[in-house]
Amino acid sequence: MASLDRRALLRSLGGATLAAALPAPVVGATRTDGVGSVVILGAGIAGLVAARELEQRGVDVTVLEARERVGGRVWTLRGGDSFTDTDGTTQRVGFGDGLYLNAGAARIPSHHDGVLGLCRDLHVPLEVLVNSSRSAFIADADGPLRLRQAANDLRGHLSALLEKGLRAGSFDQTIDAPTRKALESFLTGYGDLAADGHYGGSARSGLARPPGAFDEVQQAVAPRTLDQLLANPNLAGLLFEEEIYMQATMLAPVGGMDRIPRALAASLRRPVVTGADIVEVRRAGAGVGIVWRDAKGGAQVVRADRAIITLPLPVLAGIKGDFSAPVKRAIAAAHYQDTVKVAFQSRPFWEEQQVYGGLSFVGGETSVIWYPSDRFQQPQAVLLAAYMALDAAKSFAARPIPEQIALARAAVDRIHPGHGADLQSPVVVNWRKTPHNLGPWLDWHADGNSLDDFRLLNQPDGPFLFAGSHLSQYSGHWQEGAVLSARRAADALVPSPANVTPRHA
Amino acid sequence: MASLDRRALLRSLGGATLAAALPAPVVGATRTDGVGSVVILGAGIAGLVAARELEQRGVDVTVLEARERVGGRVWTLRGGDSFTDTDGTTQRVGFGDGLYLNAGAARIPSHHDGVLGLCRDLHVPLEVLVNSSRSAFIADADGPLRLRQAANDLRGHLSALLEKGLRAGSFDQTIDAPTRKALESFLTGYGDLAADGHYGGSARSGLARPPGAFDEVQQAVAPRTLDQLLANPNLAGLLFEEEIYMQATMLAPVGGMDRIPRALAASLRRPVVTGADIVEVRRAGAGVGIVWRDAKGGAQVVRADRAIITLPLPVLAGIKGDFSAPVKRAIAAAHYQDTVKVAFQSRPFWEEQQVYGGLSFVGGETSVIWYPSDRFQQPQAVLLAAYMALDAAKSFAARPIPEQIALARAAVDRIHPGHGADLQSPVVVNWRKTPHNLGPWLDWHADGNSLDDFRLLNQPDGPFLFAGSHLSQYSGHWQEGAVLSARRAADALVPSPANVTPRHA
Repeated sequence: MASLDRRALLRSLGGATLAAALPAPVVGATRTDGVGSVVILGAGIAGLVAARELEQRGVDVTVLEARERVGGRVWTLRGGDSFTDTDGTTQRVGFGDGLYLNAGAARIPSHHDGVLGLCRDLHVPLEVLVNSSRSAFIADADGPLRLRQAANDLRGHLSALLEKGLRAGSFDQTIDAPTRKALESFLTGYGDLAADGHYGGSARSGLARPPGAFDEVQQAVAPRTLDQLLANPNLAGLLFEEEIYMQATMLAPVGGMDRIPRALAASLRRPVVTGADIVEVRRAGAGVGIVWRDAKGGAQVVRADRAIITLPLPVLAGIKGDFSAPVKRAIAAAHYQDTVKVAFQSRPFWEEQQVYGGLSFVGGETSVIWYPSDRFQQPQAVLLAAYMALDAAKSFAARPIPEQIALARAAVDRIHPGHGADLQSPVVVNWRKTPHNLGPWLDWHADGNSLDDFRLLNQPDGPFLFAGSHLSQYSGHWQEGAVLSARRAADALVPSPANVTPRHA
Repeated sequence: MASLDRRALLRSLGGATLAAALPAPVVGATRTDGVGSVVILGAGIAGLVAARELEQRGVDVTVLEARERVGGRVWTLRGGDSFTDTDGTTQRVGFGDGLYLNAGAARIPSHHDGVLGLCRDLHVPLEVLVNSSRSAFIADADGPLRLRQAANDLRGHLSALLEKGLRAGSFDQTIDAPTRKALESFLTGYGDLAADGHYGGSARSGLARPPGAFDEVQQAVAPRTLDQLLANPNLAGLLFEEEIYMQATMLAPVGGMDRIPRALAASLRRPVVTGADIVEVRRAGAGVGIVWRDAKGGAQVVRADRAIITLPLPVLAGIKGDFSAPVKRAIAAAHYQDTVKVAFQSRPFWEEQQVYGGLSFVGGETSVIWYPSDRFQQPQAVLLAAYMALDAAKSFAARPIPEQIALARAAVDRIHPGHGADLQSPVVVNWRKTPHNLGPWLDWHADGNSLDDFRLLNQPDGPFLFAGSHLSQYSGHWQEGAVLSARRAADALVPSPANVTPRHA
């Protein structure tokens, strides 16, 4: 895009060329109003879902996608893939056969009916995504702490405190006698307390010696004290698994998240136009004219009744658009956050420590280590060694790639001493530096963003509609938001007919 | 066995026949002591592992198995299988292609290094076994309660109580000021409390309205009160996932648990002799003579230096054995418990309620509903509708099969109203009535069993050794106990050589 003189290109095209390039709108059998053709910018989940919905309603749909692949942030990297950041740095993925990294979207909550419904309709096989394992670790000053010990020692100590308070009458004014009695009884099992109400450790926290043959009786690990636990700045990692979007059971497509956009694209009657670099978004009569350049540099134009624009706002801000002034301002003002994923290929040394999937919470800039949920006990696997958000992401993303790799390796070494050296074939995905994204997501409630802009961009601007997870309540974090936003946009153009296949048959 | 006159058979065989039937002991290259041949009774995990270990040490091993399959309680039922209980009732499994029920062992904890090491060595592919899902339910007087709500409302209320106690100074004498301060700060996030320390509900507990496109803001479910939660007799189901053997990540072989014994059997140099009904266990000189009957009723004898007997004790009690009087008494005295699994084939209606794997806790005699962890979003699946232990198992196991099926269906209907009718092709596995088992497991600390007997049976009785998970610290509940007990028995006969492939390469 950088070398293109957009104005010169457009002058050469002129209005007549624009009109001549128009496909004749195909009017579908079930179309119920005046919108016969729609052009969709971006073949991420939002663009693909909008296209699928509108095609099902008889609309003539053209999807333009700048990349040579569909999926947007649903991006699965495999051995042999290469990619170039906006700063010109090229990485080639050195993973072995069958190994992959979901560089963007990587998990589906069991309550995301939209995405899961698509998987069902499109026959995308799903497997369990392990988002929490009691065998994973929390970094700790006293050495890596298993999640099982953090969770259960903590519950034990808190239960013992409550029990003591109940026995001392501290809650006599707060809760009634029957509840106090029921609670006292329940806490014994809840905290695995001794008969005297004391917490003295629990096999739930882990086994210093596993049960064996004959007389090898199991022995629980020595409990950590409440002080020790609370001194750990990463202890809140325990609650990650309870966030509503992170709770078990989580799912992922077998073989990579990109199975979903690929299946979506394959379900469209008209193939997605890939390699279509958008040059200008115009009004043309009552409709739209989209000027784009193909992979060979040739100028192309497509005209339609309406456009649904799913491009990330920082990308859209760089494209000439015939939007109203407030919309232009809102697009330009949107501030996206940072995130980086650093992954390696490695032999799965973590399995020797009984870790199969889940996350270890290491804190600092690298934040978490995320273990693979599939291909257990194979010679090689892909380990996500660093993945962070917010302030940690901002400082981490600013570092040079070799430094990011070194930090990620050091974080793994901290939790798995000696194993940093096992990590090979690093891949660093920095979403701010990823062309056609320029950022992972945004928070409308922070970073100087404005909810008024969110509202504005959720309204049509003449013939233009905007859609994408960034315009949903998911702030760009989840595929579900893209699905729902896309359906809303499609519904705004052509009301959903009653005879569309129900989503939960 | 019932129609066989053992004594007549043995009279006809005589000592000479016994000796003549002996295979010549094959002396392996790495054998380090005087034991050259071992006969193993039972091709469950213990028998197979003992055989594998001893073969690797150069011992000549014969495994005799009464069934036509290996695996013992590692038993996977598929469509077309049929089986007959000890009371003569025959069931034929009506599952469709690719569907199965792990009728016995069905999960592997991530810390069972013995079993997982076997899977690695034998290239048995593993997948995640979902043993806990926040979308599953606890039966409740006020309607099915999601585990996410039970867990998070409870933590919220308990955190709020502690917070209140801290603010009121109730713990000033119990914990020091810095810890109190750290705890107060931590509890806010732990319990998802309001700034004033109150618990007023949390999105962790579930969403009454999920976040949507544009302005469809998410709304958390209304919290249940502490009273409501504590009034639920099934609330302790919450702790199931924290038992050390039940914690995520759990695993299972892809396609059925019987992949493990099958792979073990295939790894043996000498094939397991199946259909070998043990008639008598004899001393013969310094060694043993095992009299058995083949599928055609023909009498056979195998002689060896030693025997490892892995048969369940109630089965062994019915076989004539040349054991010492105390051992005979211990075998006869062992009291096994009950368990029943009731499964159905069904369309996966639970997925429409966002349940993918995990257990619902229904209480009563049927105890739990266990959802499948694989084959998500397929037209048909196998649902374990009832699975119970202890007192519930005792009363349930005593019921006629049609009553068990009706109760299991009713339990599913209670959690998933209207869906009891979806359940088809019932299968009922009652382990007490299963030939060659006569019970699922035993508790050496209860039911009139004696730890002295446990100790006695863990010692050699002349040329006889006993092994199996029932003689480990696992009381017969886990494959890991079978592996460890078998290795102990093998080690007692031939010390493990240093050159055996390490288990965790």
